[in-house]
Amino acid sequence: MNDDEGCSPDASEWLERLYAPRSVAVVGASDDIKLPGGRLLQFMLNYGFAGHIYPINPNREQVQGRAAFKSLADLPEPPDIAIVLVSAAASVGVLEQCAALKIPAAMFGNSGFAEIGPEGAALQERVARIAREGGIRLVGPNTNGIVDVKSGFTATFSPVLDQKGLALRDGPVAIVSQSGAVGAAMFYDGQRSGLGVGRLYNSGNEIGVTLEMVVDALLDSPRFTTVLCYVEGLRRPELFAAAARKAQRLGKRIVLLKAGATAAGAKAAAAHTASLAGEDRVYDGVLHQLGVARARGYTHLLDIGRVLATYPKPYGRRASILSMSGGIGIMLTDALERAGMGLAQFDATVLAGIEPLLPAFLGAQNPLDVSGGPFHHLDRLRTMLRLFDGNPGSDITIVAVGSFERRQMEIAEVLADEAPRLAKPLFVLWFGGGDEATLYLNGRNVPTFPDAERLVQAIAPGVRPSAHRPSPVDDLVPDRAAARAVLADAKSAGRKVIDEVGGKRMLSAYGIDVVNESVVDSPEAVRTALANLRLPVVAKLRSDALVHKARVGGVRLGLATSESVAQAVADLFELARRLELPDADVVLQEQVPAGVELLLGAKRDATFGMVVTLGIGGVQAEAWDDVQIRLVDDDATGLDVHDMLARLAHRSLLDGSGGRTEVDATVLAPTVLRFARLVRELADDIDAIDVNPIIVREGDQAPTAVDTVFFLKD
Amino acid sequence: MNDDEGCSPDASEWLERLYAPRSVAVVGASDDIKLPGGRLLQFMLNYGFAGHIYPINPNREQVQGRAAFKSLADLPEPPDIAIVLVSAAASVGVLEQCAALKIPAAMFGNSGFAEIGPEGAALQERVARIAREGGIRLVGPNTNGIVDVKSGFTATFSPVLDQKGLALRDGPVAIVSQSGAVGAAMFYDGQRSGLGVGRLYNSGNEIGVTLEMVVDALLDSPRFTTVLCYVEGLRRPELFAAAARKAQRLGKRIVLLKAGATAAGAKAAAAHTASLAGEDRVYDGVLHQLGVARARGYTHLLDIGRVLATYPKPYGRRASILSMSGGIGIMLTDALERAGMGLAQFDATVLAGIEPLLPAFLGAQNPLDVSGGPFHHLDRLRTMLRLFDGNPGSDITIVAVGSFERRQMEIAEVLADEAPRLAKPLFVLWFGGGDEATLYLNGRNVPTFPDAERLVQAIAPGVRPSAHRPSPVDDLVPDRAAARAVLADAKSAGRKVIDEVGGKRMLSAYGIDVVNESVVDSPEAVRTALANLRLPVVAKLRSDALVHKARVGGVRLGLATSESVAQAVADLFELARRLELPDADVVLQEQVPAGVELLLGAKRDATFGMVVTLGIGGVQAEAWDDVQIRLVDDDATGLDVHDMLARLAHRSLLDGSGGRTEVDATVLAPTVLRFARLVRELADDIDAIDVNPIIVREGDQAPTAVDTVFFLKD
Repeated sequence: MNDDEGCSPDASEWLERLYAPRSVAVVGASDDIKLPGGRLLQFMLNYGFAGHIYPINPNREQVQGRAAFKSLADLPEPPDIAIVLVSAAASVGVLEQCAALKIPAAMFGNSGFAEIGPEGAALQERVARIAREGGIRLVGPNTNGIVDVKSGFTATFSPVLDQKGLALRDGPVAIVSQSGAVGAAMFYDGQRSGLGVGRLYNSGNEIGVTLEMVVDALLDSPRFTTVLCYVEGLRRPELFAAAARKAQRLGKRIVLLKAGATAAGAKAAAAHTASLAGEDRVYDGVLHQLGVARARGYTHLLDIGRVLATYPKPYGRRASILSMSGGIGIMLTDALERAGMGLAQFDATVLAGIEPLLPAFLGAQNPLDVSGGPFHHLDRLRTMLRLFDGNPGSDITIVAVGSFERRQMEIAEVLADEAPRLAKPLFVLWFGGGDEATLYLNGRNVPTFPDAERLVQAIAPGVRPSAHRPSPVDDLVPDRAAARAVLADAKSAGRKVIDEVGGKRMLSAYGIDVVNESVVDSPEAVRTALANLRLPVVAKLRSDALVHKARVGGVRLGLATSESVAQAVADLFELARRLELPDADVVLQEQVPAGVELLLGAKRDATFGMVVTLGIGGVQAEAWDDVQIRLVDDDATGLDVHDMLARLAHRSLLDGSGGRTEVDATVLAPTVLRFARLVRELADDIDAIDVNPIIVREGDQAPTAVDTVFFLKD
Repeated sequence: MNDDEGCSPDASEWLERLYAPRSVAVVGASDDIKLPGGRLLQFMLNYGFAGHIYPINPNREQVQGRAAFKSLADLPEPPDIAIVLVSAAASVGVLEQCAALKIPAAMFGNSGFAEIGPEGAALQERVARIAREGGIRLVGPNTNGIVDVKSGFTATFSPVLDQKGLALRDGPVAIVSQSGAVGAAMFYDGQRSGLGVGRLYNSGNEIGVTLEMVVDALLDSPRFTTVLCYVEGLRRPELFAAAARKAQRLGKRIVLLKAGATAAGAKAAAAHTASLAGEDRVYDGVLHQLGVARARGYTHLLDIGRVLATYPKPYGRRASILSMSGGIGIMLTDALERAGMGLAQFDATVLAGIEPLLPAFLGAQNPLDVSGGPFHHLDRLRTMLRLFDGNPGSDITIVAVGSFERRQMEIAEVLADEAPRLAKPLFVLWFGGGDEATLYLNGRNVPTFPDAERLVQAIAPGVRPSAHRPSPVDDLVPDRAAARAVLADAKSAGRKVIDEVGGKRMLSAYGIDVVNESVVDSPEAVRTALANLRLPVVAKLRSDALVHKARVGGVRLGLATSESVAQAVADLFELARRLELPDADVVLQEQVPAGVELLLGAKRDATFGMVVTLGIGGVQAEAWDDVQIRLVDDDATGLDVHDMLARLAHRSLLDGSGGRTEVDATVLAPTVLRFARLVRELADDIDAIDVNPIIVREGDQAPTAVDTVFFLKD
């Protein structure tokens, strides 16, 4: 067991062996299908597993018609995997046997470990140690199982497989879930709706194999293009990030449903699996940065999987709509607009081609309201689809049809027949019945949904993201010694916080423009200080003991003459005397001309480590509550500052409208990237940084950091 | 035809007659079920309509086995309704026959009217006139039909009814739709999923009967508690508002899906039915005010209908969750939290009662993760449901179960059996299969959904709204003469705009506190003016020709001494001379102490008429873009200022946090209500008003309007 495994070229080998064992021992096998050991064995026998199955049951000669063995030691050969379905207490001994017999893998389907409290946690620790020392790849514990459709390895006891007539269909989708019930239900709902879910991995307590390891290994398998994850908390976020980057390189997609996204949900998640829920909007920013699609719920996860499995290659955002109903066309238009997609413009060829196919009362505009015609005359439907497909200004085609219960298959067959001939993705909205057609179309890779919202929410994650603007090359060499000196000073003084003066020195050392300022330790020093400052200035009283300067009158604005500065500074030192602040001095700071106030920040996220924040700044930054959060852990990812700005809710504040200054991402980017470099390089010493405001002005001058505070790591 | 009909005590009579005719003529009846006249006749014959059916076809002796007639004039009696399915051109003559025969109602299923352009519009006008003059209640034109399940009156040619085995189920839900395809599909999808949709009305071009008239009349029928509307644009918004208020009085519910909610969607809607789309957030505010639930899409409309039809009485927001899966419990918790609902606290009785029913490893907290236990031992399930139901701190119960394909009906039967014994609503989330159980439960009034998002989005509109705070009694008598005088002055001067000075006089006349100010027409007048003003003041140059005062340096802030005021005023008159503004004077205004800046506004909405707006004000009001909009048309509705503030996105700006002033709705309310009174009383003269900022300060002093502008009606 190597915990650091993953991301190496052969990362998937172990998973391939796990999912296609030559022989399997089922410890706790039973005749009673009400018991896990009965159901799992039955499924393995029913769903066509080709390997050898050894039931282990000390009390029986036979189980479900197969010769049973008293223990693992009695088997004619060590199996490739031992599936352990006995009590938690009894399973420890079984695992020791596995180690002795050099069985390479075990799946613990039993519960009674960390999820039940301290006693179980101790047992779990013991099991983990045995597995580690014995080199056993451990699935679970507390998992209801894993499935590989191709090898017929249905190693699960979820009752979801306990029904007739489900022919499992292999396909490019894999589901990895931290909830067994959710994973099994999704596998089943996917399968029965025509989605090719080739593998299921329910990760349970993850003491050996974690969700991230499985995701990473699945990406290396040529069988899988789309990995759907149900996550309550990531145990190895760095491996997840690495896997996500691998997916981007390989043109594969990860889709993630994060449960516990709200405060109450996170509390429930903590109670469920003691997993660390993580701040939701950090997930939001980081997943976006890593190209991981985020699902909002159970059905949405499967819906996205259906679309990405069919069309793994990203497509554009302009849709051509052919709708049997004007109303459905409008609702599709609404949904596209809300999702940041939109309507294609019909070109002359489309217009000329469809005109003769429409009755006089229907106009030739997108969304095209065709009424019933092309669904009665299916050659017209084919012609229209091809016309749409040939329009260079159109990226995808959506057909909305419904209420043809008797004729549904006739129409569905034409759509399924036409889809592979088209160059661009085809999606279907089938409203008013159409169960059979929907199943048929989904089974033939024409993603079909029952309403506009669901269709558009499903297809939006497949849209090609805006082009990534490469970070400008920055040959600045930070003055690391200067920054380290400020840090060392603060540490030696036992400070937990570096105030704005020291903070701005550190920012400046990393090439970030800061407001021009000077510290005076007496009224007499004002004249010298002003020699290097441009009036007007601001004077601020500074003391370690003083938190809210402004509240005690410690800030004086708009000092436009040297006399008024001198007077203000004298007043502030007098204030310090009255407040008994012997360490006080006064910061004189040039007043920065008005501009757009942003904030730049960094913080240590409990899941992902240091992240950077860019958003709307100013005194009401908290109220705007409008920031984008990104990982800084890796130079290679870079930060797409254009994209960060574009995703702010109040981006209209930055576009130069309303007489405001326009914020140019190209001008802003070097500052953000230099800040990210600072954060990365000083991450061992710093827990959080706020730079607010950092003021953006007209033209191509770098933004100026006006105030900041650094919080040191404990 | 009386256009003003509606809201009278007997408003529903005409609709009852329309839906249960004793005899029906089908003009254009056919043997060919590919044609509307074939399908409609077939449905009428198949679905058990008890009245008499007269096929009209000049070329046949018999149609579908019934004796056919050459024309309406040949019938043995005038039918209660003529269903007209011949061409638009031919239908004019048919309608004239109806008028001659005194047939009280006609349904025009044909198209070729206003929706095809000017020629059709002229034809439509003719048809409307004949109907009006002949006293004929006209359904359509351009409708695919209407259905009443109880009377078997399936007067539609939508192919959605063209299938076997659908036994229509009567029930308390009615669907009224401005799209025939959407209405018919919803009727069918509702029926086949166990929803009792007793009536369908597809309103077509609405030249006689509009959607609002049908909604209003349906509310008077004891058969219906829940009206689901698909709307592209309201033609009679005032009748809709009146109907909504009637629904509130009767404890019935209207649910509305507004298509064309986005700009692109509205454009598509305009192309579809030439209906006026209306500003979406005006709809949002007004529907909320009227107690109309708003659906986001097709499925959502049916889902809400299912919940409200089962539980028309509002319930509280605290849910007790019993879940087979920890993961599903977490997702439910997330969804509840997002919807402003939440978890109930288990009381001592619940805790003591469930403890012995749980295995040791499962904790007794909400959401209760029960694993499979109670679904294998169904007596435990019953016990738990009753314990939840008895908890005074719990308002609703949600059971999440799934993946029991073989045993689904056994579990569903227990849930359906238990539901009517419970005092509080029971909802079911069935994940992983369960088609049969879902259909069974929905058919037995246990609303069942396949995932957490859908369930919670469906149940949220049924939650009891926060208690309405009655508007404080306000015995202020507005100085209407003063306000009218300002209006008259502006009009006689030919102005389209009343500036802040006149505007504040009008606000003041209606009892709204305004900043103390004085206008000086020369520097010499300053001394007299200052006698009534408290320093510091602001001086603003004012001229009809000057739009952006601040940009030309026409505003001077913080004038703290009479000398500085005199100097500033002299400077401003000098500026006026240079800018050649002979009409200029200067406004001296007291500087209002800092507080929270709100905006108060009014505008004429294209659909609903005058509406008032309350939201976050200040110079960046447009960027915050955070307002609540309400109707002012009716004193009786009142304005719930608490609710308006509570629904602002940035309400945290108003709660006193971050050192800001707390905005007390009770203190604010009289000002908002007085403003609404002004808007109501002057609505004939004014198109829009902006009051921004109106500043709220600590304590119980009324907020002060600092700046305003009134736009006069053309």
